[in-house]
Order: sequence, then C-alpha cells, then structure tokens
Amino acid sequence: MESIVEFMRNLAQQHAQVVPLTLFVAVLCLCLIIGHLLEENRWVNESITAIIIGCISGTFILVLSNGKNSHILRFNEEIFFIYLLPPIIFNAGFQVKKKQFFQNFITIMLFGVVGVFISAFIIVAGCRWLFPRLGFYGLKARDYLAVGAIFSSTDTVCTLQVLHQDETPLLYSLVFGEGVVNDATSVVLFNAIQKMDVTRLNSMTTLHVIGDFVYLFLTSTALGVTTGLVTAYILKTLYFGRHSSIREISLMVLMAYLSYMLAELLDLSGILTVFFCGILMSHYAWHNVTESSRITTRHVFAMMSYVAETFIFLYVGMDALDIEKWKTSKLSFGNSMSICSMLMLLILLGRAAFVFPLSALSNCMNRGRVSLITFRHQIIIWWAGLMRGAVSIALAYKQFTNAGVTWEPIFATMVTNTIIVVLFSTMVFGFLTKPLIVYMLPQNANNQDNHQEEKMPKEDARLPLLSFEESATTNLQRASESFSMLMESPVYTIHYYWRKFDNAYMRPVFGGPGSSHPEC
Amino acid sequence: MESIVEFMRNLAQQHAQVVPLTLFVAVLCLCLIIGHLLEENRWVNESITAIIIGCISGTFILVLSNGKNSHILRFNEEIFFIYLLPPIIFNAGFQVKKKQFFQNFITIMLFGVVGVFISAFIIVAGCRWLFPRLGFYGLKARDYLAVGAIFSSTDTVCTLQVLHQDETPLLYSLVFGEGVVNDATSVVLFNAIQKMDVTRLNSMTTLHVIGDFVYLFLTSTALGVTTGLVTAYILKTLYFGRHSSIREISLMVLMAYLSYMLAELLDLSGILTVFFCGILMSHYAWHNVTESSRITTRHVFAMMSYVAETFIFLYVGMDALDIEKWKTSKLSFGNSMSICSMLMLLILLGRAAFVFPLSALSNCMNRGRVSLITFRHQIIIWWAGLMRGAVSIALAYKQFTNAGVTWEPIFATMVTNTIIVVLFSTMVFGFLTKPLIVYMLPQNANNQDNHQEEKMPKEDARLPLLSFEESATTNLQRASESFSMLMESPVYTIHYYWRKFDNAYMRPVFGGPGSSHPEC
Repeated sequence: MESIVEFMRNLAQQHAQVVPLTLFVAVLCLCLIIGHLLEENRWVNESITAIIIGCISGTFILVLSNGKNSHILRFNEEIFFIYLLPPIIFNAGFQVKKKQFFQNFITIMLFGVVGVFISAFIIVAGCRWLFPRLGFYGLKARDYLAVGAIFSSTDTVCTLQVLHQDETPLLYSLVFGEGVVNDATSVVLFNAIQKMDVTRLNSMTTLHVIGDFVYLFLTSTALGVTTGLVTAYILKTLYFGRHSSIREISLMVLMAYLSYMLAELLDLSGILTVFFCGILMSHYAWHNVTESSRITTRHVFAMMSYVAETFIFLYVGMDALDIEKWKTSKLSFGNSMSICSMLMLLILLGRAAFVFPLSALSNCMNRGRVSLITFRHQIIIWWAGLMRGAVSIALAYKQFTNAGVTWEPIFATMVTNTIIVVLFSTMVFGFLTKPLIVYMLPQNANNQDNHQEEKMPKEDARLPLLSFEESATTNLQRASESFSMLMESPVYTIHYYWRKFDNAYMRPVFGGPGSSHPEC
Repeated sequence: MESIVEFMRNLAQQHAQVVPLTLFVAVLCLCLIIGHLLEENRWVNESITAIIIGCISGTFILVLSNGKNSHILRFNEEIFFIYLLPPIIFNAGFQVKKKQFFQNFITIMLFGVVGVFISAFIIVAGCRWLFPRLGFYGLKARDYLAVGAIFSSTDTVCTLQVLHQDETPLLYSLVFGEGVVNDATSVVLFNAIQKMDVTRLNSMTTLHVIGDFVYLFLTSTALGVTTGLVTAYILKTLYFGRHSSIREISLMVLMAYLSYMLAELLDLSGILTVFFCGILMSHYAWHNVTESSRITTRHVFAMMSYVAETFIFLYVGMDALDIEKWKTSKLSFGNSMSICSMLMLLILLGRAAFVFPLSALSNCMNRGRVSLITFRHQIIIWWAGLMRGAVSIALAYKQFTNAGVTWEPIFATMVTNTIIVVLFSTMVFGFLTKPLIVYMLPQNANNQDNHQEEKMPKEDARLPLLSFEESATTNLQRASESFSMLMESPVYTIHYYWRKFDNAYMRPVFGGPGSSHPEC
C-alpha cells in the first residue's frame, strides 16, 4: 500500500512538476493577502497565518487524495539549505543595524554561541535521562546530540514582528542578533556533530567540537567578508551603473549566493558566510551602485527572504498533517504528548539557563555603560527565543529522514515531535509574546533605552538601512565627543577605532557613504 | 563505458548539487563582468559573450573530466520552460512600449503569427525534400513538422542591443513585437504539432491546427489579461503599500508566475499568457504600488530576464562541446555541415518569404499613414530575425531528447545541428547586424521615422516604461487632435477608442496614471 502511494507520488513529481508548483504559488499569494489583511491584528503574526493556511490546505489535499497525502510538495532539506535559507540569512545581514550589532557584539555572541552550547547540553542531558523513562528507546548517541542542536535553534520572526527597533533598540538588536548567530551556531554545531566520533565521548571530543566550531566560525566569516569586499571592489572600480543598473543588481545577488555555495563547497558554514557577506555588502557594495539599484536591492533581498519564510511556514503547516509519518511513528498519543511536553520544558529550561547568567555577565562587563539589560529585558529575551522554526525542522529532516521520507518508527516520532514543538511554540508562545511585552514594558520602553532615534514610517522600520546610513556621520561625531565614556568599555573602544580605520582606509577603497559617489 | 559516465553523472547530480550550481553561478558572474567591460564594443554583444564563455568553460570541464563531460549542469527542457522562459517573456511584456506595440499591432501579428506559419511551411517542405537527398533518413512526419516550428522561432536579443527605440521607434517596435509574438507562436505551433494526428495529413488537419492555434491564442490571452487585472484590482483595493512594499512586490512576482503556471496547467500557452499578464501589470497594477516598489519591480523583472538569458546562452556554449552527442550522431562532418548549411539557407529563405510580402501588405493597409516600412527597413527586419536562440534549443531538446539525453543517432544529429545553427546564426549573423544597420540607415534613421521622442539616458532606454507613462497624457491630446488622420487607419481608430474606454472605465477600477494615487 505504502509503496503504491510512494510510486504515485514519484510519478506525480516527475511528470507534473507544474501542478504542485502552481498550487504552492497560489497558496503563497493567498498567504500574502491574508497576512496583509491581518496586519493590523498584532496577535496573529505572519508565521502563524502561514502555518494555519498550510494546515488548511493540507486538510484539503488530505480530503481530496482520500487521506493519502497532505503535501503539495515534498520537503527536501537540500531545497531548504540551498534555496530557502540563504536569502533569509543574507537579508538578515543586509538589513541589520550594523552599529548596534557591533556595539552589542560581545553580548550577542555570548547569547548566540555560548548560549546554544549551554542550551544544547541541557536538552541532550535531559533527553538522555528522560526518554528511556517515557518508554522511548532506540536513539543513538549521535541522535541525542543532534536533538540538542535541533532544539537549540530559535526562530525570532514572531518576536521581531512585535518588537520595534525604534522603540527598544537595545532589545531589538539583542534579539535579532542572537537569532541570526544562534541559527548559524546550531547549524554549525549540528554539522560538527555529524562529523565527530561519538564512540569515545570524553573531554577531548568536546574540545575537538569546540575547536572545530571556532575554526568553522573564523574561516566562514573570513570567506563572507572576502566575498563582500570583492563585490564592493568590483562594483566600485568598474562602476556598472554607468551602463546598466541591471548588472549591478544581478552581480550583488549572484555574489551573495556564490559566497553561500562556496562555503558549503568548502565544508564551511554557509549561513555565517552569507550573513557576513550581507553585512559587508550593505556597508560597502551598496554605496557603489546607482540610487535605483539601492532601492531595488534593499527590496529584492527583503522580498526573497519574506517569500522563503512564508514558504517554510506554509510547508510546516502542511507537514503537520502528514498521515504517513503519524502512522510510521508507533508511539501512543499519550506518550507522544509527554515527550513533546518534556521537550518544551527542556527548551524553557535550557534557554533560562543561559539568558539570565549570561545577561548578568554582560551587565558586569558593561558596568560603565548606561544601557544594561534589566531583568524585564532578560525575561523578554528569554521568551523571545523560545520559538522553534524552520531551521529546527530542516535539521530534524536532515537527521531523521532520507529526503523527507522515513520508515523507522523512532525517527518518524522524532520528526513529528519536532513539528509539534515548532507548531506549538510558534502558535502559543508566539501568540503570548505581544501581551508579555506590553505587560513588561508598559511605557513602550521609551524611558528604558537610551538610544532614542527619530521615528521612522512603518515601511522603513522593516528596512532600516537608509536611515542608519544617513545618520552615520552624526553618530561618528557623537562617538568622538563621548570618547572618555567609550574608554570604559572595550567593545566601544574597538568600535571607535574600527570606525576611524574604516573611514581612513576601507571606505576609500571599497566604497561607502564617505567615498567618491557624491549622491550618497 | 557510457553507462558508467551516466551513472557518475547521476551520482554527481544527486549528491553534489552544490558543485555545479557554484560553478555555474561563478561563470554567470564572470559573464556579467566581461559583458560590462565589452559594453562599449558594439560588435560583441552579450549573447555572443555568454556563448563564448560557455564554450571556454565547456573546454575546461572537458579537459578536467578527461574528455567525458562538458557540462556543469544537465539541461532539462522542463527547467527552461518552468523557470527560465517565464521571466524573459514576462519582462518583455512588462517593458514593451504599449502604445507603439498596439499601434503596430496588425503588422506585428502578421509577422509574428502568419510569418511563422509561412516560414515553418518552407522549412518543413525544404527539409522533407532535401534531407533524403543528403543521405539523412529516419525522421518521421511529426519530426519534420517539429523541425519547422523549431527553426521558425527567432531570437532578437542581439538585434535589440543594436537598435535603439529612440532612434528608430517603428523598427524597434516591429522587431521587438515580432520577436515576442513569434516565440509564443512557435511554442504554440510546436505543441499543436505534438497533439495532432499526423497519420492523415490533409487540409482538414491543417485547418484543425489553425483552429487549435486560434483557440490557444485567445484563451491564453484572456487568462493573462484576467490575471493582470485581478492583480491590479487586489493591489488597488487592498493598497498593500500602506503596510509594506515587500508584499506588493512579492504579489506581483508570484501572480505573474502563477499566470504562467496556470496556463501550462490548463494546456494553454504560458508564454502568451505571461506576456499579456506583463502588459496588463505594467499598464494597471504597476501604478497601484508605492514609488519604491515601482522602481524595484522594473529592475527585478529586467534582472531576472537578464540572468535567465545569460544562463541559456552560457548553456548553449557548453552544450556545443558535448562529446557524447557528437559521438552518438553517426553522420560524417561533411554531411553534418551540408545539413546545417541547408538549414541556414532554408531559414534565410523562409524568413524572406514572409517579411517582404507581409511588409508590402502592411504598407498597403496603412496607406494613410506616413510611417511605412521602407525597403531598407524590410531588409533589417529580415536580417534581425535570422538569429535562432534559446527557444529553438529548448524545443529541439523537447522533441529529440529525453531529459537532455538521447541515444538515437538521428535525434542526436538533429540536436547537434540545432546547436550549430544557433551558434552560427548568433555569432555570424549577430556580428554582422551592426554593420548592416549602419550601412542601411546611415543618418541614424532620424529622418526616416516620424515619431521622434525625447532622448533618454542609456539606462532608461533599457527600461522605457516610466518615460512612456509620463507622456501618456500628451499622447492622448495628440491623438484626439489628429482624429481625422486616425480615421484613415482602422488600428489607429481602435486604439483611440480603447484609450477613451480605458480612461473612462478601466483605470478608475484597476488603477493607472489617471487613477486615485496622486503620486503617479
């Protein structure tokens, strides 16, 4: 029976690529329109909308195919990692407010790197201890380690739809920065686990994983920075805009993609590479193109990221109704629920275990500064990272299925559990984020943060690049005026010297607001 | 031996999607940069550059793989028809100067529809008569008919890089319009041939093909128009830009793609649908979005089209070195060359057989107008459509291979011949276009055309939409002033009444320069 279904599915895949694509594009359009109509409603964000629409279309397909199938397309984690993830991460790097990102660099790295390790450790330990007690056997050492990485990657899309970078810049920058670094860390950690020798787990192996991680982190960053600089240099010296702005845009898109693919090819972390490539491109390359190219790239990258995200959440919604996986997973409903609740609890715990101590550490290091992470902030940061999303799903697929299909009951259970955790955390935790923020920061947080910037119109809030760049020179003045304050914090000092170096040597070569093109 | 190569190729395809993609993207970047550097050199256009770079990279791969392989990616005509063709055709519709397109509508249709039938007939008859005389047997009736469709689709990319729509608007609009309609016609004709009953070829079958064609043409157009209007209506009523311009852009891109997929799903001509969808979108939907979305969509569509075109020509260049096909094709070099020369001759003949008579017919119908197609123009139109391009290649693959692979010597010969014809016509005919135009229109054609518009900067010449829209109202005035002149020509009259209807009923509902948004 199942093989017939599989056969029919393959047939449908090979001969009618058109049907599923058409349906998927149609559902994407629907998502877009409904997402727009629900924009005013801050309780239901776009991820939740996409998941619900995915569930509904899954139900339709299930009914139409007589309970055989709930998918329009078969998920393939290669599609995710090759086509969907790069635009999302690149856009994150491209639109990040660089000044704030780098000013909070150490805190972000603490949360995003050290935090993932702590969280993964707690989840692995918890699962190892509790899974057998819930009657769930059969996972190997590598699987347990993978589970740690899978459930440590956060999805902060929901939170970012509620937080505003003008109202709470520090909070926004921490949550956003952590979200990006955290995604990268969990993927890198996951890959490190795939390669490590799990038969002899001791302190040497742990050191080896950490060593691997540091190596990957540095080389990937270097590759991303290099690609970004090369693109900027090409755009500056050849000045494509002279003939056609189409070429500039194409080059930026292709080079960004190339950086990701190169990293994957060299077994580095594409996600980190493309993130840093995005940062470098928005810092240098973006200033070397014509005005219309600038507007276009800003929107194109945001659009690709948006479509990719919607695509993923839609898929997750459909996947939740995949009868086959539920059948393959032989666990009873009660057991399945207890495993899920346990996972949720471990996620809550694992995150609490690093957010509060690391915040304290960060506050300790930044004694001299005014903007400390208050306890209310810590609670929001803790909550904001509880959602699990696309990366978790993709990693679970990679670990527990073979191109989206699995016949192993234990593996099917792990996949369905991941889906439940993602659905539940996105819907319930995501739903409660807004009330929590309103409760925690009742005065709209204006008094709690010291960086008060000019209010931007809604659209620009999503695309904060321009306004930041415009205020770059005033920031610089401010920075030099408050030099004595900066000296108290090493990050500030590094940032200050970096800006001097940047203005003196980098921008004249690679372009930037202070470089040759007068219209910047 | 061959099966091992095939096996390895499959393995490389499945497990290392990353390697070929990376290489291809890198080569695309290279093309872009070299294309920019050669921009000043009008002799070498971008198609030729891409083909040459494709040949060079093919040679490298051939050497590196010890003569086994010259491909980075395997061509799959599904990829072409699902992903590469839609953006090219949509962009053509989106950027076309609608006024001139519709003013010359009848002439364009004569060239693009009737012309393809005449040319295909001559090529089919010639091949049927000459192929056996050159010792080339084995093609069936359907194959002969397909050859007619394959070699009737023109590629006018080269020509359009030489012609300027400000200098020679009539010529540009005819060549561009014919190029688009012609592509659509040959694909539709090709599909009609696939479905027809070739065992009984008589006048009834011919009538049937023509009937099919008319049906396809009308339904496809209707679908494209409907999708375009629906998009415009959604954008106008919901006014997405209020919240985020990302959604507007995504919706336009997705709806355009949806129209193509829907048409393919309903067995219509996606190419026609997406072309008309593009026209409608640029006429209505485009005016309902924010300023930045307008700039972005204009560039995004042009970029996607540009990348897709470069991709195709690169591939053609690589494919020319596909050793396997040359081996499979058992024909001697001499015979192969004679077949190719014969095909080129038939293309020259077939095109001459409709350009000159149909131009005369068009001049006859437009007696009252000043802008007739002079004999020099006719020669340029004839020459401009001699290049064969991506559509020919894709159709040849569809007819003669199974997902890019063929073991039948005759079919391999047909594919290699198509590649040679495409290479030769693009390189040699394309190379000679510029000198021909300079020779034929020495005064830069300013005196020969009566529509003299304001000079636009180079970049805008590629993206002529804005300037046209800005001058829409003045055009209307001009049109009503010269009402008596218009009466002499039916097309002008239809166009005039259409504009009245458009302004009174369509634009208030679907949006346009005269509709509610004041910034237009």
